[in-house]
Amino acid sequence: MKKLIPFALAGLGFALALPLMAGDPLPSWNDTASKKAIVAFAEKVTKPGSPDFVPAPERIATFDNDGTLWAEQPMYFQFFFALDRVKALAPQHPEWKTQEPFASLLKGDVKGALKGGEKAMMEIVMATHAGMTSDEFEKVVADWIATAKHPKTGKLYTEMVYPPMLELLTYLRAKGFKTFIVSGGGIEFMRPWAERVFGIPPEQVVGSSVKTKFDVRDGKPVLVRLPEVNFIDDGPGKPVGINQHIGRRPIAAFGNSDGDLQMLQWTAAGPGARFCLIVHHTDAAREWAYDRQSSIGKLDKGLDEAKARGWTVVDMKDDWKKVFAFEGKQKNE
Amino acid sequence: MKKLIPFALAGLGFALALPLMAGDPLPSWNDTASKKAIVAFAEKVTKPGSPDFVPAPERIATFDNDGTLWAEQPMYFQFFFALDRVKALAPQHPEWKTQEPFASLLKGDVKGALKGGEKAMMEIVMATHAGMTSDEFEKVVADWIATAKHPKTGKLYTEMVYPPMLELLTYLRAKGFKTFIVSGGGIEFMRPWAERVFGIPPEQVVGSSVKTKFDVRDGKPVLVRLPEVNFIDDGPGKPVGINQHIGRRPIAAFGNSDGDLQMLQWTAAGPGARFCLIVHHTDAAREWAYDRQSSIGKLDKGLDEAKARGWTVVDMKDDWKKVFAFEGKQKNE
Repeated sequence: MKKLIPFALAGLGFALALPLMAGDPLPSWNDTASKKAIVAFAEKVTKPGSPDFVPAPERIATFDNDGTLWAEQPMYFQFFFALDRVKALAPQHPEWKTQEPFASLLKGDVKGALKGGEKAMMEIVMATHAGMTSDEFEKVVADWIATAKHPKTGKLYTEMVYPPMLELLTYLRAKGFKTFIVSGGGIEFMRPWAERVFGIPPEQVVGSSVKTKFDVRDGKPVLVRLPEVNFIDDGPGKPVGINQHIGRRPIAAFGNSDGDLQMLQWTAAGPGARFCLIVHHTDAAREWAYDRQSSIGKLDKGLDEAKARGWTVVDMKDDWKKVFAFEGKQKNE
Repeated sequence: MKKLIPFALAGLGFALALPLMAGDPLPSWNDTASKKAIVAFAEKVTKPGSPDFVPAPERIATFDNDGTLWAEQPMYFQFFFALDRVKALAPQHPEWKTQEPFASLLKGDVKGALKGGEKAMMEIVMATHAGMTSDEFEKVVADWIATAKHPKTGKLYTEMVYPPMLELLTYLRAKGFKTFIVSGGGIEFMRPWAERVFGIPPEQVVGSSVKTKFDVRDGKPVLVRLPEVNFIDDGPGKPVGINQHIGRRPIAAFGNSDGDLQMLQWTAAGPGARFCLIVHHTDAAREWAYDRQSSIGKLDKGLDEAKARGWTVVDMKDDWKKVFAFEGKQKNE
């Protein structure tokens, strides 16, 4: 029997090691400082008796969407949606042939269309996001997201989510966190697919919105989407949106651009243990590399403040084993 | 041993009966049609394989607050809060001595103050609900709700919640429902105590609101409450608020006044099994009796529509064993 003991112990060691390996909740993260900081925070706030313990109902974690949960280059994906909608709606709008910004868009000249600045952008958004019922808009989004492909990767937009961030969402939820999206994007643009893709139900999505109006049409109550801004959930709007929707200050917040800075500041300023993280896009090979000079997802003040205040800055290139789930497949194809 | 068998069986029967009795989830409800309708609905939508089965994430139930979860006579309780705040703030506002509606209020003449109609009401609300940070307002509300007493019952306002409705909230949650408050009252007036009293966390409270603004004061980020209406969550505003906050149509809705009608219509109009309930205040002895003619909690169109559409109308007098938890105590005192 004696001889068996070392084997048995070895087997035991193997058996112990397996669950630890299989149980790594963040397998797409390299074992760098970012991952260690995430795990250290999650453990200290959930360990009963820890001085940093936070009761489960207060474990609110907020995530930006564009550039944080999924990619945002070369344009916000919602803008591709708007462009496709302009094309789809053009037959009903013969006047667009000569009317800017639509005329340029329909000729494929996006830059020309956006020469009109914010006003042009807003006209495009309202023409494509308002004028229908909430149920109709939900269907339009659901149909688009199921089929539209990203111009560079040729993948569905929902395939351009980041596995490390999906793992992080799942990990925090397993630790009793309630995870919210807090995005500058349209709240009703995200809700139709956020539950399936991120495990985040509609009631935990905060975003920008148009005004809606209750109406009864043919005896049926509907909500009509009006061509009027209700709320812009970006920059200083993010803490406002968080307060309006959640009514509780997050203890952890995740962003990637200066549009997330006030959300991070608001989160950091609460009492007790706090965690703020910025995804820094440093990987031109697997994704895109951009920060201080980018027109999309500009990260300038946020990068300085993160360094000054000791927030976690994810270096996408070094910290993430995988940026997209389809990477491996591409290599093997 | 034979003799023991009947006893054993009797014991078994007793053992089986006990949990059933102890397990009545709605003990403050009489065994009338209202209770039966609630239980029948909850069971059919939660029974796997039932044609009416609804997956747990879609089990959204929305509850009005004033007159549905707690009393609302002789005035909305939030208005008593506003009056107390006018008194507390008066020393900082010497101009109120001669300025309406404050001058009348400070003399105890509420009717006189409200002669100015909606404009006067709005001035009172803004003077008492805006001009401070969100954290400061939360503390003011928490302090008030912990000590202020109702003028008629002499009880804390949080003691004037209805046990049958508390049981209903708990019952639905046990059945996998997510329960929300959707109230015309102030969202930030309810959140500081809704979790303790109703088991409803801040992120599941929908209500009226003032605009807020992100600011940094002495290096500290704050949200400042502005004297400007952001959203009125009443009447046709309720489906709008539900869509904005929850993004999913409720399958069950509970109200008591015409201000809840559109929420009930919106809920009823969805596909599949739906449940709409109106609390009818019929008990002048234990609470108040009012409906079509009441200036507070007017129930007129809603009563007609409920009857026409077969919604459940709770007759408070007949359907509820208990209206307030302190009733028994009063009798024994």
